[in-house]
Amino acid sequence: MSTVGSGMIGVFDSGVGGLTVLEALAAELPSEHFIYLGDTARLPYGTKSPATVVRYALQATEALMQHRLKCLVIACNTASAVSLPAIGERAANVPVIGVIEPGAQAACAASRSGRIAVIGTEGTVRGGAYREAIRRRRADAQVTALPAPLFVALAEEGLCEGPIAEAIAHHYLDPLFEAPRRPDTLVLGCTHFPMLIRAIRAAAGADVTIVDSARTTARHVRRTLQEAGLAALGGQGSLRLLATDAPQRFARIGSRFLERPIEPHEVELIDL
Amino acid sequence: MSTVGSGMIGVFDSGVGGLTVLEALAAELPSEHFIYLGDTARLPYGTKSPATVVRYALQATEALMQHRLKCLVIACNTASAVSLPAIGERAANVPVIGVIEPGAQAACAASRSGRIAVIGTEGTVRGGAYREAIRRRRADAQVTALPAPLFVALAEEGLCEGPIAEAIAHHYLDPLFEAPRRPDTLVLGCTHFPMLIRAIRAAAGADVTIVDSARTTARHVRRTLQEAGLAALGGQGSLRLLATDAPQRFARIGSRFLERPIEPHEVELIDL
Repeated sequence: MSTVGSGMIGVFDSGVGGLTVLEALAAELPSEHFIYLGDTARLPYGTKSPATVVRYALQATEALMQHRLKCLVIACNTASAVSLPAIGERAANVPVIGVIEPGAQAACAASRSGRIAVIGTEGTVRGGAYREAIRRRRADAQVTALPAPLFVALAEEGLCEGPIAEAIAHHYLDPLFEAPRRPDTLVLGCTHFPMLIRAIRAAAGADVTIVDSARTTARHVRRTLQEAGLAALGGQGSLRLLATDAPQRFARIGSRFLERPIEPHEVELIDL
Repeated sequence: MSTVGSGMIGVFDSGVGGLTVLEALAAELPSEHFIYLGDTARLPYGTKSPATVVRYALQATEALMQHRLKCLVIACNTASAVSLPAIGERAANVPVIGVIEPGAQAACAASRSGRIAVIGTEGTVRGGAYREAIRRRRADAQVTALPAPLFVALAEEGLCEGPIAEAIAHHYLDPLFEAPRRPDTLVLGCTHFPMLIRAIRAAAGADVTIVDSARTTARHVRRTLQEAGLAALGGQGSLRLLATDAPQRFARIGSRFLERPIEPHEVELIDL
């Protein structure tokens, strides 16, 4: 077996969105070595069928398992929702952590009324994984799940603030939050959505707790590694970035998501 | 060889957007038999590298060539821009028609000033195919090409009119059309954009000629078939719909694009 704390943390996403999870992970675990794979050739996963997403996620898992991992984080909500059992079977020797369970857990802890709203891509919402994960923890919860696909396009375009982002946030959220028995908790069930948190917060209202599944997942990963004695004990962390297509675009858009500049030559192109 | 007018018209697109081209084709050529393939498993093409798009387009061409075609229409702007020579080589026995050349031709015919704007996906704009096709016909043309990716998300969401669509149209088009030497012609260089034509026209201004590349391509296909003596001589046309993933979503969103209801069972799932 590997020595304590050695090995990399693999992070898998359908594209650049998971860089919000990576950013949160690097903040929680600054001494870790990360390897991130964005399946940019085949994004988005949110509109694809579960069978296709499972197939793609397993291919990505194979590619990441070529490296010495100590943990595998499935940053993509759609992949977390449908492919976690299959990935867990393939990567049985390391903890595999998706974004759904930590987000559901945080939502259940935060909500007083039990009225919880979830926004995500079509695939995440249709699959019902958040609803199921929340209801498993809190059978009385009233979960409203809503697809908000334009947020993805806004985040990638960098239109995260201003009147257009606000108008779209109101378009999606007003029917939910202007109702009399409004939710008190809102789960951002898509890696892109933390980019729009200000516009989302403004539309939902200041009294609504927003659960950012990137941050909750990062905290969950830290605790898992610490409890298993697998956390790095110090030193400078590192990051390798892999993508299946268009490294220029990955670098340009990813820089905003990761909150630090990425140069195109830092992005290694791989084929799955 | 086949008898006069027999054989199907193959239409290929990365997803549902090409249904605007199919709708225009069916209006021009109501007696033809169409077979449409949307590569929904791998959309969008607009953000992928040219090499990947060529590979996908050739696989789609292979699948459509399994049927008896008399013409192959590449409805996807990105695929038209980068893969037409490769597809033409593979499908050498039938006319292969993309959407770029007819759009460029119509723009050159419509523009008085020679100042022509093109909006499309990132891939189409970055590839520069419209600019090149316009300048080949009109060396003095001043072409401004602009990516407008949010229009794709708006069209798929069905948010084609109203304040959000108008705000986004102004966001993209005001910098172009509020300039002193503004273009007099605007090419809709993405199959999704005809869905937003009212919002686009309102932002561009009533004096700007809008070239809808779906309609111009349909007219070009009709003329090509008529000149080659390949047009159907009457009777009731038909339509087969193929998709590589998510037939439910194809039917739901495609119904708006095709302007007639599509039932999920009408969409045949194929693997490329």
